[in-house]
Amino acid sequence: MQTSSCLLEEGDEMAAANDDSVYAGPTNGVRAVTNASAIINLDHGDPTMFESFWRRIGEKGTIVIPGWQTMSYFSDATKLCWFLEPDFAHEVRRLHGLVGNAVVEERHVIVGTGSTQLFQAALYALSPPDASEPMSVVSAVPYYSSYPSVTDYLRSGLFRWSGDAHAFKGETYIELVCSPNNPDGTIKEAVLKSKFGKTIHDLAYYWPQYTAIVGTADHDIMLFTVSKSTGHAGTRLGWALVKDRDVAKKMVKFIELNTIGVSKDSQLRAAKILKVVSDGYELPNPDGMDKLFDFGRRLMAARWERLHEAVKASGFFSLPEFSSGFCMFFKERTATYPAFAWLKCEKEEIRDCEGFLKEHNILTRSGKHFGVASEFVRVSMLDRDENFDLFVKRISSLGSSHLSQKV
Amino acid sequence: MQTSSCLLEEGDEMAAANDDSVYAGPTNGVRAVTNASAIINLDHGDPTMFESFWRRIGEKGTIVIPGWQTMSYFSDATKLCWFLEPDFAHEVRRLHGLVGNAVVEERHVIVGTGSTQLFQAALYALSPPDASEPMSVVSAVPYYSSYPSVTDYLRSGLFRWSGDAHAFKGETYIELVCSPNNPDGTIKEAVLKSKFGKTIHDLAYYWPQYTAIVGTADHDIMLFTVSKSTGHAGTRLGWALVKDRDVAKKMVKFIELNTIGVSKDSQLRAAKILKVVSDGYELPNPDGMDKLFDFGRRLMAARWERLHEAVKASGFFSLPEFSSGFCMFFKERTATYPAFAWLKCEKEEIRDCEGFLKEHNILTRSGKHFGVASEFVRVSMLDRDENFDLFVKRISSLGSSHLSQKV
Repeated sequence: MQTSSCLLEEGDEMAAANDDSVYAGPTNGVRAVTNASAIINLDHGDPTMFESFWRRIGEKGTIVIPGWQTMSYFSDATKLCWFLEPDFAHEVRRLHGLVGNAVVEERHVIVGTGSTQLFQAALYALSPPDASEPMSVVSAVPYYSSYPSVTDYLRSGLFRWSGDAHAFKGETYIELVCSPNNPDGTIKEAVLKSKFGKTIHDLAYYWPQYTAIVGTADHDIMLFTVSKSTGHAGTRLGWALVKDRDVAKKMVKFIELNTIGVSKDSQLRAAKILKVVSDGYELPNPDGMDKLFDFGRRLMAARWERLHEAVKASGFFSLPEFSSGFCMFFKERTATYPAFAWLKCEKEEIRDCEGFLKEHNILTRSGKHFGVASEFVRVSMLDRDENFDLFVKRISSLGSSHLSQKV
Repeated sequence: MQTSSCLLEEGDEMAAANDDSVYAGPTNGVRAVTNASAIINLDHGDPTMFESFWRRIGEKGTIVIPGWQTMSYFSDATKLCWFLEPDFAHEVRRLHGLVGNAVVEERHVIVGTGSTQLFQAALYALSPPDASEPMSVVSAVPYYSSYPSVTDYLRSGLFRWSGDAHAFKGETYIELVCSPNNPDGTIKEAVLKSKFGKTIHDLAYYWPQYTAIVGTADHDIMLFTVSKSTGHAGTRLGWALVKDRDVAKKMVKFIELNTIGVSKDSQLRAAKILKVVSDGYELPNPDGMDKLFDFGRRLMAARWERLHEAVKASGFFSLPEFSSGFCMFFKERTATYPAFAWLKCEKEEIRDCEGFLKEHNILTRSGKHFGVASEFVRVSMLDRDENFDLFVKRISSLGSSHLSQKV
């Protein structure tokens, strides 16, 4: 996520307030583009692709919260994570048990306001409170564009962004390992190996719709979010699986100081959503319509095939290549379909790929935000069908339009 | 909010996970105490008192969220506060219009994960990004116990806690003005007057159940929260009314970096809750059962009367005295009934009032956390009836029990 300044034209919320006498109803994000020449915004990883699945699911996914429910700050004041709703924790453990993507035994579940808050909680927990110098925070390029800004926006004396893990010299650090990686979809491991170093594993994309589940992840701190697993970005709900009790306690302390806990409403909703996902595989479901990961995989496979064709037709770009793997969840070899396309512009005359695509009304995020060159861009693969369709059509036709401009 | 370490015995969330095969259902916080000698925890301001109102309201307060709704990060990508649900903003403006406690015209509404997040957003927005020294953050004693810890936990280079506003020397600062004040219920104004200084007004308790609404607050940054206005602490939802557009934009940027927006589920629920409150006064309601502020005021009046009697009976304490004021909302003179009792221990032999009450199984928060002496304690007045009943009984009987111990 970057600032919304890149989004269309910024309106005035105060002006709008003057005519808000009628109810607008709940929002559903940026509308699908209908005009063939309209701006397509694929800068953010807004997972609206999943909306059609949840519409199909219907009432089973609905949550009802009476006005008197969960009013307290506390979920269970006697527990380490005193603001964690037990049903949410239960569904987290159940879903990991089903998918097999992460160890939950002997792990503390810590809920957060998205994995972004949990990432900061982990930095807080892993940094000594009284060190003379901030802890170095590193990640191998290309790294998620938010890591530097989220680490440094408060100029904390506890931790400081220190760039590419490959270039880091030193023994004490926090290494961020995002796998599959945002932006490029690769499977990553920690590149630094000091016994004094700490790691945070951001496993937001380690779900069967994106990659083969080749093993049960077993790291000290593992971060997940409903944004990328089920598509509920607006719910702002993530969770951490944490091995060490003292680290877990410090993460809870951070969330207490930062937001005094995490929305109970979001936790109840996420519990319901995760329950529907697990039920889809564990309860009788003859037509297979309730299988989220099957839905996601089918859609991603179709989109990646179309993108590869469009990229080939354009003659402008290349895409990373991925090997397949045996997926323990699907019990077959499956291909890799990352949530983002990591496009590299192969034309020498185009150095700024983001700028080039922007001329064609396609908003993407430049490689420079990920610590690499601006011939790369990250493109969301998770938008609504209409927007994705328009995107691939526009990419396909780039070759001819660029040529005709030159002629 | 302080750490939960003061709460009973801390259990193990992992152990509990072993027997979470049945659903626990949504939580409702710390249970009411039934045993006459049990620990009564009035350390936190958990507003469970309001639960009975919302039970009585019934279905009108219920929110229903389908699985496919509000999945996007965005509420309206073209707006300054791009994660703000329009119905929530509408109900915020409507309620302030009804109550008359704050100016909403020409103000930006910024939603936050509780007013705690908005407080940090305001510190971020008001501190220069490139100053050589952190901005000084001050508040007049007794100040809310979370202000120092929330300002300093990340050892930010942007801002730093600098204590009592009365003792501050300098021209540039951020002064926090909590009014009515947490912990002591007094109406406060900024004590510093430099033209280079900034203020943040924390108006969490400026609602008719606690104090007379004597004027429409008109400050640069005003913070509110559903925790104290309607009792929905678990929803983690606050809002800021912000005059300056650039300050509002920086606050939005903070929330983007901190949690990528605010739970849509909580916003939808809070919109519904605020709607019910306004409807209770604006729609026909013959028995007056839907009037939240009337409910709150009646209950607070009864509790304060009982507390005054108990304090008198004990002979141990004193309480601050408050004058009444003409409430523009109730259109009559009304007394002051703060959300916290600020008890002062008047016995010379008892220097640690928190420790003394703890011996009697009453958990409170010592004055030392609020920048003053430990003969003071803050006691929540917002707990469930059963706990409040037991509290006043125990306070009443302190004189005799203490005497009998001495004999």
